[in-house]
Amino acid sequence: MKVLLEEEVLTDNNLSAKFNRDLFQTSKTLVINLMSSPGAGKTTLLEKTVAALGEEFRIGVIEGDLATEKDADRIRALGAKAVQINTNGGCHLDARMVAKVLPEFDFEEIDLLFIENVGNLVCPSGYDLGQHHKVAVLSVPEGNDKIPKYPVMFRRTEMVILNKVDLLPYLDFDVQMAIEDLKGINPESKLLQVSARTEDGLDEWFAWIRAAYKQIEAQ
Amino acid sequence: MKVLLEEEVLTDNNLSAKFNRDLFQTSKTLVINLMSSPGAGKTTLLEKTVAALGEEFRIGVIEGDLATEKDADRIRALGAKAVQINTNGGCHLDARMVAKVLPEFDFEEIDLLFIENVGNLVCPSGYDLGQHHKVAVLSVPEGNDKIPKYPVMFRRTEMVILNKVDLLPYLDFDVQMAIEDLKGINPESKLLQVSARTEDGLDEWFAWIRAAYKQIEAQ
Repeated sequence: MKVLLEEEVLTDNNLSAKFNRDLFQTSKTLVINLMSSPGAGKTTLLEKTVAALGEEFRIGVIEGDLATEKDADRIRALGAKAVQINTNGGCHLDARMVAKVLPEFDFEEIDLLFIENVGNLVCPSGYDLGQHHKVAVLSVPEGNDKIPKYPVMFRRTEMVILNKVDLLPYLDFDVQMAIEDLKGINPESKLLQVSARTEDGLDEWFAWIRAAYKQIEAQ
Repeated sequence: MKVLLEEEVLTDNNLSAKFNRDLFQTSKTLVINLMSSPGAGKTTLLEKTVAALGEEFRIGVIEGDLATEKDADRIRALGAKAVQINTNGGCHLDARMVAKVLPEFDFEEIDLLFIENVGNLVCPSGYDLGQHHKVAVLSVPEGNDKIPKYPVMFRRTEMVILNKVDLLPYLDFDVQMAIEDLKGINPESKLLQVSARTEDGLDEWFAWIRAAYKQIEAQ
């Protein structure tokens, strides 16, 4: 019965994900689903992205959190449109929650939509939101064992942003080991080394976004 | 139907939790359920605790992870008995998973049992494992907003160990704000400042364990 219910929930989710995907495709909006543990730095990465690319692209953000509007407020302070979803205890966003808030955006006026998922390295990985790309943020202080210990997340994301590399001198994190662990679990995945705080490495992230946007435009 | 199922699951859980609690009570074993985000430092805290208190107390550890035996191996390397539970994708331990592995311990030979939950700041908070105490670990690099953004976890734990205080000079974490946020959400909760890595502040944690153990013995 539990299994049946889960299948039902995922079938429902896939219907909403298809609805979202069709809308994103029609409006040629690049959509990125950003996932990580709590505190890995998703919102800081988005703040820096909005600040750097805000003139080049029209950016919208959906913020997923159990509670508070804190993250949406941080994005709004930079002048981008941000809609907060509060899951009231739920450990991930699903496609229907996203579909419900899409009417708050004018998709003719948006080039990039970032969906910042609930801080959780487990639950969000199973839910297709209709995005073009799934990106996981892993931060140096979380330690080297996270890729093998949370394989589902890293198997299902096509890029890992290794954040907080400015803390490498103070911690025992082995970047080469992370690269190899990721290769073992997901050979297609790419790992970018950045510090959203000091802005080190962000140019490569911005270049990746530009290339992904061009692909969407060309379709 | 979803609500009914959730109620059923929780009722089942509470039955197993009662079974666990009775066993812990009869054997006068102090049991602590340790919860946090991935990478907040639960295992390092346990390593240091086993190393420091291993002669004073007979210690057992249950490790909860989606995959791998990595954490149990780290504890075993210090000579303590450790049993690994792999949830195969599940985002928390439940009381039944714990009940199933209890026969692997000889409770006449154990004074303290630590249950390290799956790294997750959401899911584990709803599941009673039969423990005496719920302790949350929050780490400085996760940032100041985690207590208000994950209120369920911090409302349901009676102590927060603020870990990685050795990184305070390199980050913008406001300890006083964390103390006040915690007071607002859970006035009974206590916050200990430690660095499991440098061992700063661990004496207070050990003193808390000794006091909690005396209480169990006296019952």
